This record gives sequence, C-alpha cells and structure tokens, in this order.
Amino acid sequence: MQAEVIAVGSELLTPSKVDTNSLFLAQRLGERGVPLVRKCVVGDDRRRLAAEIRRAREASELVILSGGLGPTLDDLTREAASDATGRKLVFHEPIMDDIADRFRRFDRPVAPVNRRQAYVLEGGTVLPNPNGTAPGQWIEDGLGILILLPGPPRELKPLFEDTCLPRLAERMPALRFFTTVLRVAGIGESDLEERIGPIYSGAAGIETTILSAPGDVQIHLRAQSGSEDRARVRAEALGAKVLDELGDVVYSRDGTPLDETVAKLIVERGYKLAVAESCTGGLIAGRLTEIPGSSQFLAGGFVSYSNGAKTGWLGVDGDVLAARGAVSAEVAAAMALCARRHAAEALGEPAVGLSTTGYAGPAGGTPEDPVGTVYFGVADDNGQRVHRRSLGRGRKRVRALAVQIGLELLRRRILGLGGA
Amino acid sequence: MQAEVIAVGSELLTPSKVDTNSLFLAQRLGERGVPLVRKCVVGDDRRRLAAEIRRAREASELVILSGGLGPTLDDLTREAASDATGRKLVFHEPIMDDIADRFRRFDRPVAPVNRRQAYVLEGGTVLPNPNGTAPGQWIEDGLGILILLPGPPRELKPLFEDTCLPRLAERMPALRFFTTVLRVAGIGESDLEERIGPIYSGAAGIETTILSAPGDVQIHLRAQSGSEDRARVRAEALGAKVLDELGDVVYSRDGTPLDETVAKLIVERGYKLAVAESCTGGLIAGRLTEIPGSSQFLAGGFVSYSNGAKTGWLGVDGDVLAARGAVSAEVAAAMALCARRHAAEALGEPAVGLSTTGYAGPAGGTPEDPVGTVYFGVADDNGQRVHRRSLGRGRKRVRALAVQIGLELLRRRILGLGGA
Repeated sequence: MQAEVIAVGSELLTPSKVDTNSLFLAQRLGERGVPLVRKCVVGDDRRRLAAEIRRAREASELVILSGGLGPTLDDLTREAASDATGRKLVFHEPIMDDIADRFRRFDRPVAPVNRRQAYVLEGGTVLPNPNGTAPGQWIEDGLGILILLPGPPRELKPLFEDTCLPRLAERMPALRFFTTVLRVAGIGESDLEERIGPIYSGAAGIETTILSAPGDVQIHLRAQSGSEDRARVRAEALGAKVLDELGDVVYSRDGTPLDETVAKLIVERGYKLAVAESCTGGLIAGRLTEIPGSSQFLAGGFVSYSNGAKTGWLGVDGDVLAARGAVSAEVAAAMALCARRHAAEALGEPAVGLSTTGYAGPAGGTPEDPVGTVYFGVADDNGQRVHRRSLGRGRKRVRALAVQIGLELLRRRILGLGGA
Repeated sequence: MQAEVIAVGSELLTPSKVDTNSLFLAQRLGERGVPLVRKCVVGDDRRRLAAEIRRAREASELVILSGGLGPTLDDLTREAASDATGRKLVFHEPIMDDIADRFRRFDRPVAPVNRRQAYVLEGGTVLPNPNGTAPGQWIEDGLGILILLPGPPRELKPLFEDTCLPRLAERMPALRFFTTVLRVAGIGESDLEERIGPIYSGAAGIETTILSAPGDVQIHLRAQSGSEDRARVRAEALGAKVLDELGDVVYSRDGTPLDETVAKLIVERGYKLAVAESCTGGLIAGRLTEIPGSSQFLAGGFVSYSNGAKTGWLGVDGDVLAARGAVSAEVAAAMALCARRHAAEALGEPAVGLSTTGYAGPAGGTPEDPVGTVYFGVADDNGQRVHRRSLGRGRKRVRALAVQIGLELLRRRILGLGGA
C-alpha cells in the first residue's frame, strides 16, 4: 500500500502557511510501513480538487484529504469528493444531531450553514470527530481507500490516530516494522554518510533515512519482518554496527533530542546548569526552557550582550576584556567560570557553566577570527575548557549551530569524552 | 497567468522536512500578481515526476520545479523534464567549465558524476547559478513556461529573484501591483476581522489577506492598476481607513516585524533594554539578538529560572518572593526594576527593564493563577507597571505569545500609549 495526501485550502498556498498535517500523517503512516509517495496542496476550487482526487486515486491505493469540511461555502471537499467518486451526497441525521448537541453545550444557536456538514458520501463510513463539528469520512471501493479528515490539527490527529489507524491496520498485510533512531551531533552529513554508508547499504530489507538539521543528524533504521520482535532485533543489530563505527558522537539511541539528553545528564549528576550567552543571545536558555520542568536542571542564564553586562553582571575582568576582546578564548573561559560561580552562590549547590561568544555576522570579525568564529567555554569541578569553532556564514545558521555545538560540548564534558 | 510549484525530493516527504521554497515562491509570485494555485511534493521517481510535470503544465501556464538537479543518480528532475517535454538532454560545455572552475576554487577534484549537471533540455535557456554547481533552466513553448531551479534555498532564492523575476516581468501584462502591509499585536484574528471586514470587503479591486501567528496579525492590502503609482495610492488609501479603525494596535505600516519596530524605538530614545525572563526563558533576548547590530539597543538579559537566580542575580527581595510566589505581580515588577537598575549600573546609561514570569505549563499554576497566566513588568524613568495575561494552554504557544505580548507592552510604554 502507498499513500498520497491532499491538503485543501487556499490559505495553505499563502507564503506564511505550512501544511503540517501531512508531516504528522507521513510519520504515522511511515511507522506502519505505508510510504507517502506524494503530497500536494490545492486551493478551494471544486473542479481542480475533484481532478486531483481522481488522479491521486488512480496512482495510489490510499488517499487522505485534510481540510475543506467546514460549514462555509468555500469548504468544498465533500462536493469535490462526490464529483471524483460519482457518489451522491446524502443528508445524515445523526451527524446533524451531534452538531446541534455540540452547539447546545456551547450555548450557541445552530446556523443553517452548519447543515452542510451533515452531508456524507453515499455508502461511506462516518468517522466521529469528538473535537469538532465536521466528522471524517471513509470511502472504500475498487480503487482503494479515500479518507476525508477535518483540517484543524487538533481534530485531525486524534481522529486519524484513534479511528483511521486501527481500520487501516485491519486491511494491512501482517508485516511489522521497527525503527531504531540514532542521533548525532558534531559531525556533518557527508562525513557521516561516508562512514556509515557501507554499513547500512549492505543491510538488506532495512530502510535507512538520514535527516539533517544544523548541527544535528538523525539516522533512522527501519526493519520489517513478520513479527515486531524480529523487526526490532534486526533494526537494533544494524544500529549496534552503526554505533560501533560512530562511537561517542552518537548522543541518543532512542530519538531523544540533544537538549533533553543533556538535561537528563545534568539531573542525574545532581547539579544545575548556568549559561552565559553572548552570540547566541538567549537561544540556549530558550531551547532548554522549552523542556517542561526545566527548573530541575537550569539555574538560569545571563545574556551578556554588552561589555558592561560581561563585566558588571557576570564579573569578567575588564582588563582581560579590553586586552583580548569580547570574542576570545579568555573571555569565553571567564564567562563560563563566572556563570558557574554565580549559580553556585545563588543556589548554594554545585553548578556547571556554559558560555558562548562569537561573531554571528553579518558585520564584525577580525582577520584571525572572521565572522562565524565562536568560542565556547565549559566550567565545572574539574576546571574550565575553551573550544573554538568556525561556523561559516549566515547569522541565523551560525547561531543555530552554536546552540547545538554548545550543548554537545557540555554533553561530552559531563560524560568525560575525548576533546571536552 | 497562474503558477504551480513542484518540489522534488523524497526527503521532503519525511515527517521532519518542509518545502520552504514554495513559500518564498508564493510570496514573490503573489507580489507580482501571479497566483499560486497548487503545489506538490514528489519523491525521486522519474516516471511519477514526469507525469506530474505534464499534468501541471496542462493546467497552468507557469510551472516551477525545485530540487533534483544535483549530481547523484537520484537527482532526476532533468530526465523527468525531458520525458515530459519530449526534449532531448544535451551536454552544455560552458556549464561544465563553470563547474570545473568552482571545484578548482575550492581545491577539490571534479567527480565524474558532476558531468550530469551539465546536461540541459534542448532549446532551453540556462540560468546561471552563482551559488552552486547546478544551473537553473527555462523552457518556453506553446504550453507556457517551465522553470527548473536548484533545491537549496540559498541557491534558489537569488536565482529566482535576479534572473527569473525580470524574465517573467517581460512576459506579463502591463498590470502593476502595490501591497500595503499593516501589522497588529494584541488583538485576535476574529476580533480584527469583525472590525475591519466591513472596510476591506467594500473595496473593489483590492485583495485583502489576513495572516495570523501567535500574537501577531498581518493585513496585506494589494491593489492593482495600470501604473504602480496609482496602485500605491489605492492600497494606501485603504490602509489609512483600516488604520483609522484599528488605531494604535497597529505597530507597523510597512511590514516591519514587532522585534525590529521595538528595537528601532529604543535606539531612537537613546537608551538600552535589559530583560529579566522567567517563563520565556531567554526567548525574548534570543528573538531580539536575531537582529543584526542588536548590541546597539540591548544591554543584555537575565534568565532567572530559579528563585536563587531571582534573588541572588537580579536582587528580587527574598521576602516578597516567599510571600507572593515567583509568579506574581510583585515579583514581575521587581524583576523589571532590577533588570533596569543592573543595566544602568553596568553601562552607566539609562535603561528600560522588561520582565516575564508565569506558568507556561503543563504543570504548575494555582487556582487564582492557572497554567497560562503570565505577569509582565515594564520599568523605565516613569516608574514601573505590571500586566497580567491569561494565555491558555500549550507550553510552546504560551511562551511564543508571551514573547510577543512582552514586546508589544514595551512598545506601548515607550510610545506612552493607553494601558501601558
């Protein structure tokens, strides 16, 4: 079985909207071994949408539509699906009752336009939507399966998860899948490919996907077999070989992202982290505080964006700052040490300090330290260590890379790994 | 003329990748009055891609492909376009020379596989790509225009902007467009629609698009006319009416985002900003430091994520903290005051302080201040002021909203607007 997703809605063709439902569907389908082979976005145009549905159904056995099931006149998915399948739209009383109930609960009158939402394709199955007025619909015929889902992610996701996936599972061959995810920081995608390509390309029946983001590479190894246990054994055996080759640059063997990996290590060690950020300007703290319960491991941070903040707030020696410049190994070391000391003093418990200072660009830099140069400091019980990296161009990219590298250096330091 | 975009690459069908090129293309085409009527993502499959190109060209006069022009064997856009158009691929010596030059500059040998990139569709125009080895291609025939662009955004964007748009302009009717963009913070999309809907829906020939993000709404008013001046007059006249209705919640009349608007105001006032962040955990500082040259207006920030950091680093009174709790009006006020004082002391110049403290969730909260409650403090020469907001659920969303609201409160305070 292979799948296509059609997202419906003119707003999804504007410069600022992204169809995120298809990402969720790709994930859930992929986990069950159904590849997404094509996806598209079509505006609120009945003729165009009907043509799209016809074409997709001819090419793929499973076609999922999201959106266009609302009550207004530009919600045309029902009509287009009717045109494409040749099935009439019939009024379904129980849906209308549900809608009326829903409105009553919210103390609002039912608008006549809401009757539109109670029409379903003849012979289709209604998929109840506990989170909205538009139910999903499931049509199955000689061409395969056509699923109509509401567009809002908070309605689509539970509906797909709880109702569609079990129905799909009944219709799938007994093949089971298991995916092992390794995550790597501090090594580029092409270097990585060169090292592990020979390993995974020799593994028959295991699909390997490499996903890379600035400073972060994910290796997905998906094995298939008649039983999940068997698939798991095969995926994990290949994972172990990849791990053998890559060693300690692998920071996660279960898909956990780097921020959570580092957070867990700090919690385990029983101390707190304090960051002192210059070029990353709060992004490391911002990233770590995205984790619920981050007060467990984060004392706090200093965004020391001015020299005054570096000396006055952090306590970096003004003479060192003047002599070496704000972007220097000496200042990075002092920032990490000061952050650590402030945290230990404020909390009365041991802490580790992490600092960044660099030229994110576009202006700045020196002949020795051009734009893209970032110094990182890590300070703990065993003293401090400074690292210098050249991260290239592009302010946003340099800063994103610096966040990732800072966290990876911290991980290596905590674990006592080489080079940290 | 109407356009379709086809993004090529199996990686774009995975759960973690989004085709961002189509957003850029939608923007640029929209500005010139070419609607994007459909977009899709196709994997690295020659047959499927060729069918897609054929179908798109039958439906729309302008079809733009992005990606699949690399050197490897799964880069199949050239071959698929050849199948779809019936044009042969011919070797183009000057491209090969450019590729060889490029490799020489980077001191790397030319791989034989790179020869693939020097093949172009017979009768097509080569579009030079200064940022990569794969040139773009432009094919024009009875069906319309087919453009092949490289996938990396840093190659695609300048190539489209500098080479494709001028060529497209030559082929467009003499209709000119002008878009006025108003941006609004602190008012929801539906309230906004209710207030300005009657204004813009009565304006014939002006297309209105409302784009909303957490805490931020953009109003795009696009007028068309035979001359750009005339279009500008019409768009600006409608903009003035919208502005009359909305008043000072409009923070930008030229599309400038809120962070840059606030940054400019602070620079103009000649002082510096210091932030003290608890629930936003560095995101406000991180957002402001995304602006190049942010050291001009940002002294720095404190991420006071622990009580110890609030008292020990910022200097919030420990008794107040104990009595009122970290999430309270009193602590928000103290945090803003302390940040302001630290900045003024460290820099020896006047400063303004901004603070956030709240329950981002999922845990935390009290009966009076449930999850989603955030207190904001603003402190300047005229004293301090605290604001309380209920931002609902969802840690990520609450934090994103809090960043936006914090910046908007700061803007209103600086300008002396109502409620700040």
